[in-house]
Parts: sequence; C-alpha cells; structure tokens
Amino acid sequence: MMTKEEITMVGFEIVAYSGEARSKLLLALEKAKEQHFDECNSLIEQANDCLNDAHKAQTELLSLEARGEEIEIGFITVHAQDHLMTTLLLKDIVFHLINIYH
Amino acid sequence: MMTKEEITMVGFEIVAYSGEARSKLLLALEKAKEQHFDECNSLIEQANDCLNDAHKAQTELLSLEARGEEIEIGFITVHAQDHLMTTLLLKDIVFHLINIYH
Amino acid sequence: MMTKEEITMVGFEIVAYSGEARSKLLLALEKAKEQHFDECNSLIEQANDCLNDAHKAQTELLSLEARGEEIEIGFITVHAQDHLMTTLLLKDIVFHLINIYH
Repeated sequence: MMTKEEITMVGFEIVAYSGEARSKLLLALEKAKEQHFDECNSLIEQANDCLNDAHKAQTELLSLEARGEEIEIGFITVHAQDHLMTTLLLKDIVFHLINIYH
Repeated sequence: MMTKEEITMVGFEIVAYSGEARSKLLLALEKAKEQHFDECNSLIEQANDCLNDAHKAQTELLSLEARGEEIEIGFITVHAQDHLMTTLLLKDIVFHLINIYH
Repeated sequence: MMTKEEITMVGFEIVAYSGEARSKLLLALEKAKEQHFDECNSLIEQANDCLNDAHKAQTELLSLEARGEEIEIGFITVHAQDHLMTTLLLKDIVFHLINIYH
C-alpha cells in the first residue's frame, strides 16, 4: 500500500510534468501566431512527451484504486489531477488554434 | 448514506457521459473545420444531452454533501469531476472555435 | 487546524470568484466577437482580479497541506479547484481567441 506521502510525491510529479507540458503548448501557440510552424511542431512533440509521463503516473494511481487499494486523497493530489486534465484539454484546443493560425 | 462504492459508481457514470460528450464536441469541431455545419450542430446537441446527464449526477453528489452527508472522496470521484468540468469548458470554447471556422 | 467546514467555506469562496471570472471571460469573448475591444479589455482585467482572489484562497490551502496540516477534502473542495483551474485555462485560451477575432 502507498502511504499518503508517497501519493503526494506522485502528485508533485504530475504537477511538474503537466506544468512543463502546458508551458510548451502555450509557447507553441505563440510560435504559430508568429507563423513559425517548425518550432511550433517541435514544442508540441515535447509537450506530448511530458503529458505521457504525467498520464502514466495518474493511471498508476487510478488503477491502484480500481484494484481496491485505499488511496488517501490530499489537496495536492486533487491539484495534480486538475493540472493534468486541464493540460490535456489545452492540447486538443491548441490543435485547432494552430490550425486557425495556419 | 451512500457507500464509497456507490459514489465511485456515480463517478464512473460521470466519466462515461463526459467522455462521450468530449468526443462528440471534438468531432463537431472537425466537422466545422470541414465546413459541414449540419453534422456539426447535430453533434453539439448530442454532446449537450450527455453533459446534462453527467451534470445531473454531479449535482446529486454536491447536494448530498451540502445537506451535510459525508461523501467519501476517492481518486475516481476526483477524476470524474475533472472530466466533467474540463468538458463543460470545452463546450464554451468550441462555440467560439466553430464561430471562427464559419 | 482548519475544520472541514472552514475548508468548505474557502471552497465556496473559490467557486464564487472563479465563476465570476469565467462569466467575465466569456462576456469578453462575446465583446471581441462584436469587435468591441475596449469593453473586452476591461472585462479581462476584472476577470483577472477575481482570479487573483480565487488563486490566493487556493494557495492558502495548498500551503497549509504542504506544511503538514491535515486538509480534509470534500466534494465541494474538489469542485472549487476544478472551477479555478478550468477558468485559469480559459484565460489562456481566451487570449488567443481574442487575438484571432482582432
């Protein structure tokens, strides 16, 4: 069983990866706005890598709970999930915004 | 009083409805991008129906807690709320993206 | 230590501030769509003030937990964080949508 402390550490990991992905996605949008589409694409790829890492960490926790383990939820764990889910949404929207800038 | 298991089941329901709404909203965007606005509108309506169902389930839990009932929060319940709230945001944004594609 | 009730009250505060910010951001978008950019900018500023207040309340709770205090998480606290985080995302996206309407 994971302690609350360990779960919080996973939370911080998710915040860090998601935060990095979010910065890269917003920077990619800026590059698209300036019509620098090569840099834009490379930033999107980097953001996807960060998001995959964050997603993996979250899925781990979700499947622990689904298997019946007690996951003690703290404020930071909730914050981590918000970070990840809003950044995943940003990714989908950025795709269309870039398309419009094109 | 609802058990944690029952609350988790409502969580899964919210994830399912929100996920379906999200897919339909993103597909609607694709249709708008291809200038197929009839299909786009019909997908938006279907997404709204799913979102209403998800919203109803969430409101039920919120009002239980507001009435003083102890709602045990699990990772999946948090995930469910994230799913719903990000999809509600997507709906507002999609409205403007479609407008721009028009 | 904060009681669950006090934490819930902070939650309601976050929901209120975020909700107001969200309404103002969406109204700002409408104004941008109608090419009324002065009103749009003033609404964005008002939304930022609301978001700062909401952010301050959330940071308070996060830092309490980081300092080792037990923050009891309820459904409404989770909802509050979702509200804030989705509205912060909306702010970033609205910036680009307004830019496109320009």
